[in-house]
Amino acid sequence: MAKKITSKDEDFSQWYQDVIREGKLADHSPVRGCMVIRPNGYALWENMKDSLDQMFKDTGHENAYFPLFIPKSFLSKEAQHVEGFAKECAVVTHNRLQSSEDGVEVDPESKLDEELIVRPTSETIIWDSYRDWIQSYRDLPILINQWANVVRWEMRTRMFLRTMEFLWQEGHTAHATKEEAVDETKQMLEVYRTFAEEYMAMPVKTGVKTESERFAGAVDTYCIETLLQDNKALQAGTSHFLGQNFAKAFDVKFQSSEGQHEYVWATSWGVSTRLIGGLIMTHSDDQGLIIPPKLAPNQIVIVPIWKNDEQKEEVLDYCHEIMDELNELDIRIKLDHRENMSVGWKFNEHEAAGVPLRLTIGPRDLENNNVEVARRDTGNKNIEDREGIAQHAADLLETIQEDLYKSAQQRIDENTHSVDSYNEFKEIIEEEGGFVYAHWDGTAETEEKIKDETKATIRCIPLEDGEQGECMVTGKPSKQKVLFAQAY
Amino acid sequence: MAKKITSKDEDFSQWYQDVIREGKLADHSPVRGCMVIRPNGYALWENMKDSLDQMFKDTGHENAYFPLFIPKSFLSKEAQHVEGFAKECAVVTHNRLQSSEDGVEVDPESKLDEELIVRPTSETIIWDSYRDWIQSYRDLPILINQWANVVRWEMRTRMFLRTMEFLWQEGHTAHATKEEAVDETKQMLEVYRTFAEEYMAMPVKTGVKTESERFAGAVDTYCIETLLQDNKALQAGTSHFLGQNFAKAFDVKFQSSEGQHEYVWATSWGVSTRLIGGLIMTHSDDQGLIIPPKLAPNQIVIVPIWKNDEQKEEVLDYCHEIMDELNELDIRIKLDHRENMSVGWKFNEHEAAGVPLRLTIGPRDLENNNVEVARRDTGNKNIEDREGIAQHAADLLETIQEDLYKSAQQRIDENTHSVDSYNEFKEIIEEEGGFVYAHWDGTAETEEKIKDETKATIRCIPLEDGEQGECMVTGKPSKQKVLFAQAY
Ligand SMILES: [Zn+2]
Ligand SMILES: [Zn+2]
Repeated sequence: MAKKITSKDEDFSQWYQDVIREGKLADHSPVRGCMVIRPNGYALWENMKDSLDQMFKDTGHENAYFPLFIPKSFLSKEAQHVEGFAKECAVVTHNRLQSSEDGVEVDPESKLDEELIVRPTSETIIWDSYRDWIQSYRDLPILINQWANVVRWEMRTRMFLRTMEFLWQEGHTAHATKEEAVDETKQMLEVYRTFAEEYMAMPVKTGVKTESERFAGAVDTYCIETLLQDNKALQAGTSHFLGQNFAKAFDVKFQSSEGQHEYVWATSWGVSTRLIGGLIMTHSDDQGLIIPPKLAPNQIVIVPIWKNDEQKEEVLDYCHEIMDELNELDIRIKLDHRENMSVGWKFNEHEAAGVPLRLTIGPRDLENNNVEVARRDTGNKNIEDREGIAQHAADLLETIQEDLYKSAQQRIDENTHSVDSYNEFKEIIEEEGGFVYAHWDGTAETEEKIKDETKATIRCIPLEDGEQGECMVTGKPSKQKVLFAQAY
Repeated sequence: MAKKITSKDEDFSQWYQDVIREGKLADHSPVRGCMVIRPNGYALWENMKDSLDQMFKDTGHENAYFPLFIPKSFLSKEAQHVEGFAKECAVVTHNRLQSSEDGVEVDPESKLDEELIVRPTSETIIWDSYRDWIQSYRDLPILINQWANVVRWEMRTRMFLRTMEFLWQEGHTAHATKEEAVDETKQMLEVYRTFAEEYMAMPVKTGVKTESERFAGAVDTYCIETLLQDNKALQAGTSHFLGQNFAKAFDVKFQSSEGQHEYVWATSWGVSTRLIGGLIMTHSDDQGLIIPPKLAPNQIVIVPIWKNDEQKEEVLDYCHEIMDELNELDIRIKLDHRENMSVGWKFNEHEAAGVPLRLTIGPRDLENNNVEVARRDTGNKNIEDREGIAQHAADLLETIQEDLYKSAQQRIDENTHSVDSYNEFKEIIEEEGGFVYAHWDGTAETEEKIKDETKATIRCIPLEDGEQGECMVTGKPSKQKVLFAQAY
């Protein structure tokens, strides 16, 4: 049976769509730019969500839920914020339909006094609540996270990477001091880095955004950036130090322990279903999805083989014993005993779904006390002893997790360059893509010129101090090299 | 320090608001009819969600996610469905704002070709997907659940019980046969009954709705109904057998194993944050929330008492040892060692938050190897031996769970009547409220007349066969008594 996945080298963009379709992660929806997240995709998101949620709780955060709708007037309270989001807002203007000749129409009588915006992000509605919750320094810090859907009316959309509606988490914290807020911003950046690298096996660069790439309303935007298999960069998570901007816009002050009234300091931080797009483009291959074991909905699939009922019973008994042993090691496992499809068809399906390990068990394995073990990432198959198979599989899952990270790290290292001249820069960006470190004079004009001429943007300014030098474009002084790439 | 909770007997409705406020469950939001679910309320919802989600998965369901927006034309594909929801729809008509003199205004140029409805429920958008997913009997059943927010533009709202936006789960299943779909409908009703009774300690009656109370688009609506402390009924969950209505509206057919093309059979079922309202009105008292141990965010709070630093260290050591023992029993526990508030203040706070058990530990307890244990539900305080305290507390949590159920069951039994005359019916409904079983002739006219004259509605027709009789209003034949009450 032919696989329906276009080769990555032939057409990366089509390959990506094919991997999503064959892995049954998501479908296009009849609403332009929205998607349907299918059970396989949602189970992956649930695992990502559970891991992140635990990391948020371990760092002292609680979950809460704020309204989907934001009064239009709230958005405009913070000047940069509204400028950033005004052009991509879903606006609710009416609250009733009525019968019409060919179905239903909006009832013009039901027009709202004030339009409601479907949240593109929740800073405004949340800081309106924080005004009521914060009186004194004793009420601080507030460390809240929300899991929610948000809507940004994007014109060019792509499954997971950029959709009109997406699922995400948004942390919103309030602090008594600037230092504490900056520490929180950096702490959550580190949580994101850890999650990306240790769970997603997706190496990232960290840094701060330039002013032109900053979140609308932030003082500083910290980010994690990764490099995908087509050598384009992806912003995978952001953590914003908001200063006192939202506190001032919503008049949120607290009485300090010295009795003074001061504006509250804020952060916000978020990652979204976009991470799934990053995961796919980091690891997957022409056979479909590859999912790191820590996040895989099924970590192991067992495919039993039999030719008659007697064999069936024996083989399934053998499989169940192995399953029991795997269950004791808390491994997520699936036994695929469907009868109306061929073994080859099952192999393809589980490959396309990215199950990290496959155990194949037939009558000959019972005779020899064996199990065939196949790795999804390398395609390696080995015959292993039945004895100790569960621990062997558990160890192998750890190895796969590490190998995926190493292999992605190696790919990114190989595609990260450091240049000194603009000619070299343009050549690499044009011919190879990838991450390029280069000196920049710190001005928005030069940044814009580079973007216009090469489509490369500054992904981030590294947090570590670098060597001084001269801007590759203008020759003016540069404090350190910054990280460029063409990006999604 | 005075409690700020109005007495239940004095003003039930105000009491309910006060309990929510003092328990820090939720706030009113600036968007009319929406609420902010605060960390205490959301942690309760998370526990409810986790328990239900496990029950759904144990019965073979998977989670997925469908778009927030539904094209207007989809709603009108099922005639009864659109009639049921047209008058309470949030309608998105534009996708852009622009600057205006005093902030922002809707950009009239951004009007959508087809308006989008914020989902009031997802049957239509989901069955549009199912058409693509279902070709053959091999694709069935589809057993999918979605955790999501939905919007219904309600005019009279009340925290948790009826809000414009609410959080819920909606199951949507597709089956090859009518029998299988009916079985699924009943299975999920049973899941809801189990959850309500065993987790929420909230006894419920089960049955089917009359035609006038049926879900818009359903063939049969099964429900769980409970009776609250003000003797009003609450519909706490519904499970709908949808027949082939949505399959026909969205043209979803499958090829049977005999090669015939047939319409698919459907169910849908949901519970929402409304359950939190039911939980509050079932158990809480004039001191605030009472939460059954299985769902309590914190099952035990430890309040240490000390007068000087030396005592502090000793007391906290003693507390931590007990916490370790409780942790080993997987009990959710909080140590309240805040220094800037009085013990009395802490007691009130944890009472208002509904923490089932409080352990108080001071220097004298250390001397005597004791712990003071206070039950939230009964207010009983006992001095217990330090030795074996963890197991004692675990047992007590189970006892509390059972006692809450028994006490609610007793209250509901005492307030459930069976009558034979309409005069008796009216007297009970008017003077006492509660559940009343009575004969009804099965017509919508009589149902309507009873509602107009007494505000009582038929909560459900019991699933068990009852004795035949004569309608209390018309004297016409009745197959069985049905359950009436005034309801939220
Ligand atoms: Zn190179
Ligand atoms: Zn009575």
